[in-house]
Amino acid sequence: MRLLAALLLCPCVAAANGGARGTGDLGVLIERASGSLQIVETTHNTSLGRVEALGDLSHASVVYSRDARYAYVFGRDGGLTKVDLLEKTIAARRLQSGNSIGGAISQDGRLVAVSNYEPGGVRVFDADTLEPVADIAATWGDAGKRSKVIGLVDAPGQRFVFALWDAGEIWVLDLSDRARPKIDKYRGVGRNPYDALITGDGRYYLAGLFGEDGMALLDLWNPQLGVRRILPGYGRGEQKLPVYKMPHLEGWAVAGRHAFVPAVGRHEVLVIDLGDWREVARIAVAGQPVFVMARPDGRQVWVNFALPNNDRIQVIDTPSLAIVKEIRPGKGVLHMEFEPRGEEVWLSLRDENRVEVYDTRTFERRAAIPAQKPSGIFFTARAHRIGL
Amino acid sequence: MRLLAALLLCPCVAAANGGARGTGDLGVLIERASGSLQIVETTHNTSLGRVEALGDLSHASVVYSRDARYAYVFGRDGGLTKVDLLEKTIAARRLQSGNSIGGAISQDGRLVAVSNYEPGGVRVFDADTLEPVADIAATWGDAGKRSKVIGLVDAPGQRFVFALWDAGEIWVLDLSDRARPKIDKYRGVGRNPYDALITGDGRYYLAGLFGEDGMALLDLWNPQLGVRRILPGYGRGEQKLPVYKMPHLEGWAVAGRHAFVPAVGRHEVLVIDLGDWREVARIAVAGQPVFVMARPDGRQVWVNFALPNNDRIQVIDTPSLAIVKEIRPGKGVLHMEFEPRGEEVWLSLRDENRVEVYDTRTFERRAAIPAQKPSGIFFTARAHRIGL
Repeated sequence: MRLLAALLLCPCVAAANGGARGTGDLGVLIERASGSLQIVETTHNTSLGRVEALGDLSHASVVYSRDARYAYVFGRDGGLTKVDLLEKTIAARRLQSGNSIGGAISQDGRLVAVSNYEPGGVRVFDADTLEPVADIAATWGDAGKRSKVIGLVDAPGQRFVFALWDAGEIWVLDLSDRARPKIDKYRGVGRNPYDALITGDGRYYLAGLFGEDGMALLDLWNPQLGVRRILPGYGRGEQKLPVYKMPHLEGWAVAGRHAFVPAVGRHEVLVIDLGDWREVARIAVAGQPVFVMARPDGRQVWVNFALPNNDRIQVIDTPSLAIVKEIRPGKGVLHMEFEPRGEEVWLSLRDENRVEVYDTRTFERRAAIPAQKPSGIFFTARAHRIGL
Repeated sequence: MRLLAALLLCPCVAAANGGARGTGDLGVLIERASGSLQIVETTHNTSLGRVEALGDLSHASVVYSRDARYAYVFGRDGGLTKVDLLEKTIAARRLQSGNSIGGAISQDGRLVAVSNYEPGGVRVFDADTLEPVADIAATWGDAGKRSKVIGLVDAPGQRFVFALWDAGEIWVLDLSDRARPKIDKYRGVGRNPYDALITGDGRYYLAGLFGEDGMALLDLWNPQLGVRRILPGYGRGEQKLPVYKMPHLEGWAVAGRHAFVPAVGRHEVLVIDLGDWREVARIAVAGQPVFVMARPDGRQVWVNFALPNNDRIQVIDTPSLAIVKEIRPGKGVLHMEFEPRGEEVWLSLRDENRVEVYDTRTFERRAAIPAQKPSGIFFTARAHRIGL
């Protein structure tokens, strides 16, 4: 009888095994033009399938549920979509604003926050259901106007940190009691913060300023010190150099005690001492850097570039600060993502309609995957990191 | 017809959904006395089931497959077991030596290595099948004797690093070509290395010495410098203090530019500057420290102790070096594991037959899970880290 049951169940068991798999080696590729994404795996470097109807995915970014099963996709059109990587389906979707840019997931994985341009503010949703939890209007000044919000990240202690473009403010939102959000506001941090990052330990929040030089730094371990200004020469400078693309700050690379930072408008990567936040070196590179990302062991830093040099990658050796490799994979190198232990890196080549995978030691190409105008690449190991 | 098929498949689909889940929030609890483990999840802090017949699990440790589906369990009796966390079954098992201690998984997740006491050496297996790949005899000296091997870790570039207890050597095994293993040997590193660690960037390998004071340091970015001695006062000292349990070095905590290190035999935690490897402070604690572990954001360091103080935990605030909390959860606090973003920590209480989960901010107990003489706790996020 048990044998008979086993025989009858056989096709179903096969189906069950097809659905059941580990999710630690999964990721998604954003296909910006078609509003779709591909689900990929890094063990054999293959695509597992496509999920469509995700709206406007230009500048889309992704965070992951704590079990690494679900991707939360933040679209440009206010769309927040929860994608089931195992079922390859949309588990939930909500058009939560008219115009948004990026999001974050809380330390405990229970809350997903989105930063909105229009209406300006941050909306927070339950990670399971996408039901609304909090709606934080970025109201500032005497006239009660709302500011665009940028640079939203998570911080330890169920906090979200973000910057107000119009207001020149940084806010720290504490949702440890989700029914009673608490906000600490830092005013006058500088003109037009345009992007921000938090260090991997969740301690330092840094915002780049579009309206003036320098960066705004908030030490979350010492909030009573307020926001201070660092890197006074960081920015477009007096001559207002033409800037083809403002660099992405989320890409800041930390290797040992140094951070490697894309210069604004200049063909340089800056090296910053994390002990005192001073510039200690500049590395000449092949163009205006966009992403400057460290291999997870910190031994290499990979750099991509704005037009007209967006067909190449340069690799910096961090102890010597020398460029040890240049790769020209093709046109429109938009994004890079390292596998979590660093043996391979994935590159999206928008204008070539493919993603390529490279061995970071030998620089050999290991795989190429067709994709429709690929941009961001995000692996599930991000689920376990602070501030991504 | 399709509807009929769907109806017929219904119970099976339910079963399939039962098997399919994300594996990013999973982990295992070692039950040392019964040779079993429990599979747990950290989203709701529950046990999902037990897997038995794993042999002698005293001092057992665990690494994870790159997809975070399989746990490789290293037993004390030479048993290497691959456990399927989704199916809650033994996927493969091999009694690979008579007496072993710990193991590691290669950067790409393709190779699992085990360090053996008897016969002394390292054996390497295919991570999929557990078929043998390499057998490295730890032969040393003129007589061709074999040494016990300890302190085995993975390093970037498909390398494994380990120490030879009897020989006083450190070996670096390069398996980037698995058919032609390459070994670099460092001799005369000190008497009786008893444990070791590699820093989270995979750069520095440090071995503690049982036979003399000081530690042996190998900089894998500068191997031509050889092994040098650091922390000359580190060890049992001239007076040969009674040591109830040699501290675990894998637990070394790094927070900012400091490492927090268990003193040997003394009721102290040492603070080491990672820039020059010098001791900069000592913190008085409640007993002989065993594990000294940093919360993932580096703000706190948690310490447990050898007998007779193994009923408590102390928490150090890293900026002030002050002990900010003492918890007495019960007898036999053997191990700690932080959830990957640090909001909770799991403690195993061997003599109380339970595991407890604490909120690291409020120090409230959030859950208690019955377990049979629990020892090590290991979460799947380790799959994505170097040197664990």
